Amino acid sequence: MLFHVHMLVDIPLDLDKTYVEELKAKEKALSQELQRKGKWTHIWRIAGQYANISIFNVDSAGELHDILMSLPLYPFMQVEVTALCQHYSSVKNEEEAH
Amino acid sequence: MLFHVHMLVDIPLDLDKTYVEELKAKEKALSQELQRKGKWTHIWRIAGQYANISIFNVDSAGELHDILMSLPLYPFMQVEVTALCQHYSSVKNEEEAH
Amino acid sequence: MLFHVHMLVDIPLDLDKTYVEELKAKEKALSQELQRKGKWTHIWRIAGQYANISIFNVDSAGELHDILMSLPLYPFMQVEVTALCQHYSSVKNEEEAH
Amino acid sequence: MLFHVHMLVDIPLDLDKTYVEELKAKEKALSQELQRKGKWTHIWRIAGQYANISIFNVDSAGELHDILMSLPLYPFMQVEVTALCQHYSSVKNEEEAH
Amino acid sequence: MLFHVHMLVDIPLDLDKTYVEELKAKEKALSQELQRKGKWTHIWRIAGQYANISIFNVDSAGELHDILMSLPLYPFMQVEVTALCQHYSSVKNEEEAH
Amino acid sequence: MLFHVHMLVDIPLDLDKTYVEELKAKEKALSQELQRKGKWTHIWRIAGQYANISIFNVDSAGELHDILMSLPLYPFMQVEVTALCQHYSSVKNEEEAH
Amino acid sequence: MLFHVHMLVDIPLDLDKTYVEELKAKEKALSQELQRKGKWTHIWRIAGQYANISIFNVDSAGELHDILMSLPLYPFMQVEVTALCQHYSSVKNEEEAH
Amino acid sequence: MLFHVHMLVDIPLDLDKTYVEELKAKEKALSQELQRKGKWTHIWRIAGQYANISIFNVDSAGELHDILMSLPLYPFMQVEVTALCQHYSSVKNEEEAH
Amino acid sequence: MLFHVHMLVDIPLDLDKTYVEELKAKEKALSQELQRKGKWTHIWRIAGQYANISIFNVDSAGELHDILMSLPLYPFMQVEVTALCQHYSSVKNEEEAH
Amino acid sequence: MLFHVHMLVDIPLDLDKTYVEELKAKEKALSQELQRKGKWTHIWRIAGQYANISIFNVDSAGELHDILMSLPLYPFMQVEVTALCQHYSSVKNEEEAH
Repeated sequence: MLFHVHMLVDIPLDLDKTYVEELKAKEKALSQELQRKGKWTHIWRIAGQYANISIFNVDSAGELHDILMSLPLYPFMQVEVTALCQHYSSVKNEEEAH
Repeated sequence: MLFHVHMLVDIPLDLDKTYVEELKAKEKALSQELQRKGKWTHIWRIAGQYANISIFNVDSAGELHDILMSLPLYPFMQVEVTALCQHYSSVKNEEEAH
Repeated sequence: MLFHVHMLVDIPLDLDKTYVEELKAKEKALSQELQRKGKWTHIWRIAGQYANISIFNVDSAGELHDILMSLPLYPFMQVEVTALCQHYSSVKNEEEAH
Repeated sequence: MLFHVHMLVDIPLDLDKTYVEELKAKEKALSQELQRKGKWTHIWRIAGQYANISIFNVDSAGELHDILMSLPLYPFMQVEVTALCQHYSSVKNEEEAH
Repeated sequence: MLFHVHMLVDIPLDLDKTYVEELKAKEKALSQELQRKGKWTHIWRIAGQYANISIFNVDSAGELHDILMSLPLYPFMQVEVTALCQHYSSVKNEEEAH
Repeated sequence: MLFHVHMLVDIPLDLDKTYVEELKAKEKALSQELQRKGKWTHIWRIAGQYANISIFNVDSAGELHDILMSLPLYPFMQVEVTALCQHYSSVKNEEEAH
Repeated sequence: MLFHVHMLVDIPLDLDKTYVEELKAKEKALSQELQRKGKWTHIWRIAGQYANISIFNVDSAGELHDILMSLPLYPFMQVEVTALCQHYSSVKNEEEAH
Repeated sequence: MLFHVHMLVDIPLDLDKTYVEELKAKEKALSQELQRKGKWTHIWRIAGQYANISIFNVDSAGELHDILMSLPLYPFMQVEVTALCQHYSSVKNEEEAH
Repeated sequence: MLFHVHMLVDIPLDLDKTYVEELKAKEKALSQELQRKGKWTHIWRIAGQYANISIFNVDSAGELHDILMSLPLYPFMQVEVTALCQHYSSVKNEEEAH
Repeated sequence: MLFHVHMLVDIPLDLDKTYVEELKAKEKALSQELQRKGKWTHIWRIAGQYANISIFNVDSAGELHDILMSLPLYPFMQVEVTALCQHYSSVKNEEEAH
């Protein structure tokens, strides 16, 4: 199952800086672990925004939900999920190749 | 340069069916040619819609514009372009690997 | 996989009445066949609108897309898909019981 | 009377964690009690969001309002209600079977 | 059951004038019949628009749906329905008095 | 002059409970006084929301503005006003009968 | 009674040019007659758009509605009406002086 | 140069009451001074809202910007500016007469 | 006076191709004449869209309106105008240098 | 690469005034340095708003992102980026001349 996820991050300005840095480091480590496992197949920064567009390749919407809920920065995110499927013009099998 | 492109296609219902099939065939051929050249790096169908989400890797916004304008179905599309850049959590160099 | 689908139908007023009735009859027959198969688990009318809210239980987003594309009234619909998952407060396993 | 209810929950980040857990436990208990009574016939999680889509089967809009107001998490919710009715393509009597 | 209904009418400019006048006359007759029966308890014109705000007092959302679908001008309307209930500050029983 | 008023109330969660109850009691008393005077001719609860839809029958927009500003809960409201007039299908003179 | 009216005009491109010119001439004549009578107290062009912002000073919302409905270009307009009242900072009595 | 300005005021509820009254008094004094100078040619209250619609007659967009920035309540306002010009149906020269 | 203008062009697909090419050629010639005169100081294509963002330096909003109305493609455009002024961080006098 | 950037600044009212002035001075200094380097080719104030419209000429979306993130006021901004390209009607090469 492929999902397109738009994450907009908005961390309150008065949050402790050290705490925020810790959260970001944990977020990055978890994101990279999930990328290496092939669950989080792409992550791009939207130019000019503290936001990303990501592609997930998971077994179910439930697995996607659990992954997103486990992100250290989730409490500061607005998340939009779009279900994707294979496009008949695509030259690759997106569920396998990334 | 990476761009996220959302294309929504709306072909008038009274257009000649044969003509539409020809346009779709040409669109698919051109899309696949651009995918093989590494310009159109991803194309996914949005579930339930005659729409796709695509990623382009081009030299400039001008090249992206020319590619989109050359699509046989462009006159029937609503297109939204978002400029992307490398995310510091990404484990790959998106401009090279896809 | 559970999906929430909102379908808004807008049939042009000048379409041939007999043709429209045929489309509606085919739509109803296909919908009921899919309901009996357990693919289209719920369909409700939105009061006052030519629109419905439906729940689908399918193997993948691709299967959902193919089903929606096969609907006789699809060319006249605006469709929005939302991916659902099990709620921790639910007293039933929604993917099995309906 | 069938109603489609969209609940979006937004609990302030600085609320006492223990208090929040208590509220969630009470919410879950009340939700399950209402589900068993046949008032709250479905509840699904929207993938990636702290939000749900629910179906209620109640005697009146007033009863629905009272139920929603009694939810422990109501003060943190944005709620949208849509009145539903039987769809002529449905193979079951939705007001009875769920 | 009380419902707030917003109807926006948009009749194509090239429709036959006599036909339109017939539709309007039938619409008015049916509306007044429903008002006298106590089903359509209020109808107000929105200043400056070919639109009205109405209150219906019906047995169910299904009855409301059937009434709206039977309106001669329904094919030219955009309709939004909002479920109402008794307000605790109201000095009358809205479901009885109008 | 008839006006349709949509009031959405959003009282901050950290406001003193006793103070809020006092405000609500005053709001109810004033609302009922205005209803009895024939100024505030209808008030309905929107199902599932801390919001109401009201009809006012006043001498001018200025009188409406002064009434709304005098409401104890006004500082917590978002208010939208729509000017109404007699509908040619209405069976009653709305400015007189309610 | 003062009303702020936003009129957006959208005349179909295939309408007969002579007919359109006649409509515009009639619209202008009626507008100026209403301005001289003090009913249509202001009319401004929105820069770059075929739209205007106007102020009306009428006896009731009903009178405003009748005036707007009588405009030759009304069938091609989208109209939004906002009820105004005297501002406590205003140095003039807007209902009298213009 | 004529500009249409929509000002929506939202003063935080916990601001010191005396301070707010001082700001409002200064705002009113400055507004009336600008009205007398012919810079702020109209100000109307939007019925039911803490908002106004104003017309300014200034030498340039820069002068308008400086005036708005000098308003004591500006920090609490959302402001939208629309450039106006003479309407060919207007019976007066709006830049001179008000 | 500086204005930011967003022009979105939507030419009907069934318009005569030769006529459209003539309009585009006239549009280009007029645009370039206005650029050379210093009235239309910038024009950029929005990547992926038949739309542009332009900056005009004109004597008044009226002059801007007349220029826009004279564009051969104006009947097919949606236009949004935003009034600009000198930014205190700018290193040049925008009304003179371009 | 040319980008159109809309920056809306919203500094919390309770932030220390001296600190805000320091931020603004640093913002201005950095903006002017980038303007002199030819990276930030235009900056205009939107009349009536604490917002600007800017044009950047940078090597990549990544460079634009880094510049925006380095702005002292970035934490208080809402930023929207639009990719631009040469317009075929433009009389200059926008990537070179400004």
